[in-house]
Amino acid sequence: MRIVSYRDNGQDRIGVMTGADSFVAVAEVAPHLPHSLRALLGSSDGLVRLRDAVAGKAGTHSLKTAHLLPVIPDPHAIWALALNFKTHIEETGLVTSKEYPHVFVRTPLSMVGHNQPLLCPPPSVAKQFDYEGELAVIIGKGGRHIPVEKAFDHIAGFSCFNEGSVREYQSQNRNFGLGKNFERSGSVGPWLVTVDEFGDPENRRVITRLNGIERQNAPLNDMLFTVGQVIHFLSTGYTLQPGDMIAMGTPGALPPYPGENLAPIGRHKILGAVNMKPGDIVEVEITGLGVLANPVAADQDVAYRSQ
Amino acid sequence: MRIVSYRDNGQDRIGVMTGADSFVAVAEVAPHLPHSLRALLGSSDGLVRLRDAVAGKAGTHSLKTAHLLPVIPDPHAIWALALNFKTHIEETGLVTSKEYPHVFVRTPLSMVGHNQPLLCPPPSVAKQFDYEGELAVIIGKGGRHIPVEKAFDHIAGFSCFNEGSVREYQSQNRNFGLGKNFERSGSVGPWLVTVDEFGDPENRRVITRLNGIERQNAPLNDMLFTVGQVIHFLSTGYTLQPGDMIAMGTPGALPPYPGENLAPIGRHKILGAVNMKPGDIVEVEITGLGVLANPVAADQDVAYRSQ
Repeated sequence: MRIVSYRDNGQDRIGVMTGADSFVAVAEVAPHLPHSLRALLGSSDGLVRLRDAVAGKAGTHSLKTAHLLPVIPDPHAIWALALNFKTHIEETGLVTSKEYPHVFVRTPLSMVGHNQPLLCPPPSVAKQFDYEGELAVIIGKGGRHIPVEKAFDHIAGFSCFNEGSVREYQSQNRNFGLGKNFERSGSVGPWLVTVDEFGDPENRRVITRLNGIERQNAPLNDMLFTVGQVIHFLSTGYTLQPGDMIAMGTPGALPPYPGENLAPIGRHKILGAVNMKPGDIVEVEITGLGVLANPVAADQDVAYRSQ
Repeated sequence: MRIVSYRDNGQDRIGVMTGADSFVAVAEVAPHLPHSLRALLGSSDGLVRLRDAVAGKAGTHSLKTAHLLPVIPDPHAIWALALNFKTHIEETGLVTSKEYPHVFVRTPLSMVGHNQPLLCPPPSVAKQFDYEGELAVIIGKGGRHIPVEKAFDHIAGFSCFNEGSVREYQSQNRNFGLGKNFERSGSVGPWLVTVDEFGDPENRRVITRLNGIERQNAPLNDMLFTVGQVIHFLSTGYTLQPGDMIAMGTPGALPPYPGENLAPIGRHKILGAVNMKPGDIVEVEITGLGVLANPVAADQDVAYRSQ
């Protein structure tokens, strides 16, 4: 089952995909079910009831015209991993604990859904706005002190994650802070693929394309800490919640293509990485899952706006 | 106006204090108002309508028997500042940017309200569970690119914050991550004092007591970055939201008392700091605001629990 979150008349809604582009609007065929994916995952047998409710129903809505939201628009927590791919550790030259996953937190307002624009900061604020293609894990059943071998019992599914980063802000201090939390700087989608359909991500790849050109392409078994290890680690500290999302970290850059004249970028002088600019299209694909695509738009000028 | 959030029959509710212990249950006298403080702050003239609704009403509920929640139980973001007091920078010997506030994120489940127990991790998980007395700023009106001199127009009020930290986890990697996000490890309350009543926090002090003994006592004008500067900084990155909370950082420890035999604790060997243990009572006072008190309880044993 592939599940989308979308906005309809100001309300968060759930859809279940029936084809490449079409989906069933769950509120229309099963108005008794929770209307948000987080609430559905937190309800008893939520995914089973969803599957039963949409069985045999035709997909009458289109991804192209829907306003897609982040797979979970209102999670309790969005965790992200720093330096979890060996190739990314090597290219940055940074050191990270081999004992404990390196985690930080993103806020919901820093995320958008599939097809929605990412906002590139004005150049006077920052110039290094970067993609990071990642696997997203979405928690289904909450739990504490979850053993590694039980971790998959707590996963609802997976998605593609673009962990968009504003590098100048990320490196201002020890904690990444605001650099990982610019408004609409990251994305997750297009949908949640349930774990029964996707299987173990170890056998998949993550691929990032900027304007159609591959910039990252790596197997998901190159991670320093596996999905199960990270779930175990986080659940040592708190009771994981239905709808919590974990972005599993990004791999290293592909080398520049023959004849391509790319300068190394960022404070770590990474060759093959490219900053995002307004007008770009960025895609994160997880093989066997789908492609998360976002246009990049210029954020508004630096001017005081009160709500 | 002093406003509390509390739980009643599984629902989040708002109360307005009428005495040292008594409060008006807003849902009883004004059921048309939003039932959560975040929603109230986000509604047009929310605080004005609240003030009008409770004017002249008697406080029929007691703090002692209420289940108090964090001042904002469901914020979009809880920001906290690292190394924002000169005395704390000195005692740790750490370096932080003098240009950019050093911020990180806490999750809602890491927080409890006044009088609710903080959970001390089992010794097999961590032994260094520490208080950090801080001023909390609660955003009222959202905004982007807020000038320092307009910052107070965006503040709903202030509260006391105990930014409880699990030191071993905080120092595992560059980002504090899970070390600032253990379940029920921090607290905020007892209430929000509106900015019109509290004025500028620069003239107040923050005091932390463990089992009645003062361990921190510092003026709030010793901050490296002021409330206005931090609001300006965060709003460069995203549109601050009604109910967002900012914990302004903790001051240094008071020296041990004459005759007191305290060993320096933690990796920074801070003299005068004391780890929290089950059975302790920890209090954070902001002068002119109130006292946030929490008992410390042992968290459950390390055992797999599935929800």
